[in-house]
Amino acid sequence: MNIIDLLTKKRFGKELTQEEIRFFVKGVTTGEIAEYQASAMLMAICINGMTANETLYLTMEMAASGDMLDLSEIKGIKCDKHSTGGVGDTTSLVLVPLVAACGVKFAKMSGRGLGFTGGTLDKLESVPGLSVSMSAEKFIDTVNDVGLAIIGQTQSLAPADKVLYSLRDVTATVDCLPLVTSSILSKKIASGADVIVLDVKTGSGAVMDTYEKSVELAKTMVDIGNRTGRKFSALVTDMNQPLGNYVGNALEVYEAIEILSGRAEGDLKDVALALGAHILRLSGVRETYDECLKLMHEKLESGEGLKKLSQLFKAQGGDERVPYHPELLPKAPETMDVCLEKGGYIKSIQTDMIGYAAKALGAGRDKKEDEIDLSVGLVMKKRVGDRIEAGEAFATMHISPISNVARAKQLILDSVALSDTPVEKPVLIRGVIE
Amino acid sequence: MNIIDLLTKKRFGKELTQEEIRFFVKGVTTGEIAEYQASAMLMAICINGMTANETLYLTMEMAASGDMLDLSEIKGIKCDKHSTGGVGDTTSLVLVPLVAACGVKFAKMSGRGLGFTGGTLDKLESVPGLSVSMSAEKFIDTVNDVGLAIIGQTQSLAPADKVLYSLRDVTATVDCLPLVTSSILSKKIASGADVIVLDVKTGSGAVMDTYEKSVELAKTMVDIGNRTGRKFSALVTDMNQPLGNYVGNALEVYEAIEILSGRAEGDLKDVALALGAHILRLSGVRETYDECLKLMHEKLESGEGLKKLSQLFKAQGGDERVPYHPELLPKAPETMDVCLEKGGYIKSIQTDMIGYAAKALGAGRDKKEDEIDLSVGLVMKKRVGDRIEAGEAFATMHISPISNVARAKQLILDSVALSDTPVEKPVLIRGVIE
Repeated sequence: MNIIDLLTKKRFGKELTQEEIRFFVKGVTTGEIAEYQASAMLMAICINGMTANETLYLTMEMAASGDMLDLSEIKGIKCDKHSTGGVGDTTSLVLVPLVAACGVKFAKMSGRGLGFTGGTLDKLESVPGLSVSMSAEKFIDTVNDVGLAIIGQTQSLAPADKVLYSLRDVTATVDCLPLVTSSILSKKIASGADVIVLDVKTGSGAVMDTYEKSVELAKTMVDIGNRTGRKFSALVTDMNQPLGNYVGNALEVYEAIEILSGRAEGDLKDVALALGAHILRLSGVRETYDECLKLMHEKLESGEGLKKLSQLFKAQGGDERVPYHPELLPKAPETMDVCLEKGGYIKSIQTDMIGYAAKALGAGRDKKEDEIDLSVGLVMKKRVGDRIEAGEAFATMHISPISNVARAKQLILDSVALSDTPVEKPVLIRGVIE
Repeated sequence: MNIIDLLTKKRFGKELTQEEIRFFVKGVTTGEIAEYQASAMLMAICINGMTANETLYLTMEMAASGDMLDLSEIKGIKCDKHSTGGVGDTTSLVLVPLVAACGVKFAKMSGRGLGFTGGTLDKLESVPGLSVSMSAEKFIDTVNDVGLAIIGQTQSLAPADKVLYSLRDVTATVDCLPLVTSSILSKKIASGADVIVLDVKTGSGAVMDTYEKSVELAKTMVDIGNRTGRKFSALVTDMNQPLGNYVGNALEVYEAIEILSGRAEGDLKDVALALGAHILRLSGVRETYDECLKLMHEKLESGEGLKKLSQLFKAQGGDERVPYHPELLPKAPETMDVCLEKGGYIKSIQTDMIGYAAKALGAGRDKKEDEIDLSVGLVMKKRVGDRIEAGEAFATMHISPISNVARAKQLILDSVALSDTPVEKPVLIRGVIE
């Protein structure tokens, strides 16, 4: 077997066998297949596609390219959740404690923010003392003890994906169904959970640029995911504006606490509870989705979710008082409103621009090494469909000395489109793939 | 402009502009565009194709990526010839002197043998004393003085092609019409000739694996070539057996001398004279092809072609007596016949295997650095359609201590297929594209 023959097959649209895909993934991981050969294969896959079997094999071989986490020592059903990346999207911090409060074990591996999207690890680190790195043993013990833990992905998790992902980024092969699917699923499979719920974003700045493509991605991921022997569901949710009103690390933790304390409502809460309810249903906690959603609400109202969040913080070395005293979170030294010059109805908000605004303020990074400030970010005051008056605050920036205030302000202003006539609120949960 | 946008366009089958192709070729030449990006583009071009305009721009930009030879100081029409690579194919050494004898200037840049194909430079170097490297000034002076010169391609000739060619070789993107076309034509355009005739091989071991594809390649090259402002024609010629009967460097020079001396007939002579006649026609020496072919024959019969060959050898430092005393060429110390165990009619000869046999004897190389022996090779005794008896010699190997005789013999034996019933001789010139 050699890579030239494999490239020839894919160039002419033929189906690769499992052995051939294994050869490709192995060669990519060891470096025996050169980057220029891997990228030629990625382009051929983008143009000629992959069958369901090819995508399944690619997913499984990528998962097997590094360590496969063995969670069998955790008693009961282990679940996980993945979002394709959003802005103001801190559903994990809301749903993880609630699901754990229902008795389903949450052994979650998360990522950091990159580009315009935030990452759960950065958010968690805004809790004083909290660490997101621990050994596999400690991780398993923590989940057994308190029912939940959230750590960073290890370097040895799906290393083939690291190689391919960095190549896709520079060869215009990012938005390709089998490649997105295998990239996301391989890491979830290697992370060891039994039940996985996916939140596929659709709208400005989502990985797939149309609603139809987002649905196709969700369907493909659930189909391929289920073929691996794990249980998958997906929601397709609106990302035509930030999901929550808070964008920035400590700010998003604050919003999650507000929701779990019963003091805040809105899209973030609705999506988080829906995702959690799907996990409960797949885990067999209750039979129907409606019963599961009701249970999620009960755990929120009883304060058990907030208590689990406190346990999570404590188990990972963080200040357990934070959920009850969110004022302990880091605070930016200054705030500044961004007001619109003219009034109207908010027609649309370019979500990725809001993400880039938060990044300009210091909340995010372009490269892994970039310094971030956990306290900065912005709070949205208006959502699509809302009426705003001239001179009224559209958002409040939380700024520090590292903030590029002028750039952030411009991005925020540029992100908004107004209408003179009333605008309907967007539908939030646009599809459910079971 | 950035490479990601260009890759995206080509991935989705859109047409690149001249500026975009210039950006690509420049980036490939300087290395600013990484190899993994260039190879992704090559794969996208292979799958989605290129329009005539894109192929033209790619050709012109690749030609302009290095030195463009200025032949304006050579008086009269300058011509060149290119073959897509054959075995026993020394048409250049026959037609170049004859065309020069007709008054058309031959300023030819040639290559070396690689893999199973031979190269004119290696053949010329079997003439004692002859050198194929000279400065551009000396090259121009020589062509002005004696009407012909054959030198090696400089490193600075179409450097973009060197990068892309080496990538194509390892990414299964060799046999792609716009890429083959631009690779061949860019070097011819940069070499400066006004009139160029192409010999596109079809058959076992040709770059395009079917007759239809060979014709398509010939048509594309003539079309694109004419759009560059030069005059192009192409023949599609049979390569289902070695063109001449001699395969190996000194052996092929010997066969060319035999033809120019009027002592040998056959396919090699016929193709060489046809190619030369097309050059004369495009150069306006005579009006019709038939008149031009007649002139080629006259120059051969008068001995003027042989005399020009002698002048060429002398001008390049070689022994001018060789055309009249071919026994001065290097001779292998030993010969050995390869006989067939059973008789029959020769149905087919796998041409590339004969080329590899010559290489095994030491006449060719896998890598540029490999040592070759100019004296070794083989002489074919039979052609397709000929009757051969059991135990009769099919070929004679000319061997030296570096020869792998066993391997060469096996390759020769394996190359032949026999038939019990008579076999028609193949058609030699299968297409003319004007």
